[in-house]
Amino acid sequence: MKKVLFAIDDTPECERAAQFLVDFFTTDYAFTLIHIKADFVLYGDAVLASYDEGQDSEEQRAKETMGKFESLFASKNHKPTMLLKEGEPVQQVLEEVKDYDLLVIGRSTDSFFNKIFSSNQDDFITKAPIPVLLVK
Amino acid sequence: MKKVLFAIDDTPECERAAQFLVDFFTTDYAFTLIHIKADFVLYGDAVLASYDEGQDSEEQRAKETMGKFESLFASKNHKPTMLLKEGEPVQQVLEEVKDYDLLVIGRSTDSFFNKIFSSNQDDFITKAPIPVLLVK
Repeated sequence: MKKVLFAIDDTPECERAAQFLVDFFTTDYAFTLIHIKADFVLYGDAVLASYDEGQDSEEQRAKETMGKFESLFASKNHKPTMLLKEGEPVQQVLEEVKDYDLLVIGRSTDSFFNKIFSSNQDDFITKAPIPVLLVK
Repeated sequence: MKKVLFAIDDTPECERAAQFLVDFFTTDYAFTLIHIKADFVLYGDAVLASYDEGQDSEEQRAKETMGKFESLFASKNHKPTMLLKEGEPVQQVLEEVKDYDLLVIGRSTDSFFNKIFSSNQDDFITKAPIPVLLVK
């Protein structure tokens, strides 16, 4: 069974990408949905007061995002493996990707993909050792 | 049946991309292989003497490329539709692409994809109205 890694984030564009995937791919393909939890950063006094609370809310948000995408895939009889990671997104995805046949990234102004391209000079596609599907 | 448009050229990298596709995609997917014939350009005296001959040899080369890729797909039980066009590659592919679910481009130093990015400023992926799969 061919393995597809789909990098998800909490944007409408990424949901549209998910919709394309469940419609386009038959259940002969095994999906893993990877989500990178936002780093939680606080400055000044807020650090001491709210660190735990902030961590919890990021964790909560990540779980909601993952649940939403898992349901969307399940509604079309896909049974995705869910993967939650934390850290630098490019690094995290590249660490996983070598075990897959295809990497899928939603492409839009607010997407993961665009964040990568605007936030650093890494050529993500060049680095990825497998084919990359860009969905917008 | 989902429709996939694959832009082919006569490079080893594009052949590797084809190998990935026939291995990755089940025969539930209908492929169309589009090839853009090179514009034949001659300068000076050569124009009068060799125009027809040059045209013929470009035509011959295009047919060989298409035959090679068709065989490769057929060897894995895919029955691709073959499409030979002439003219500006970006324009030609974009004209076709609207009738498909996915566009596939081989990505390498010598590939079609790279020619597009090095020869003009068009953001091919931004212009394409459908998802794009980059295979290297």
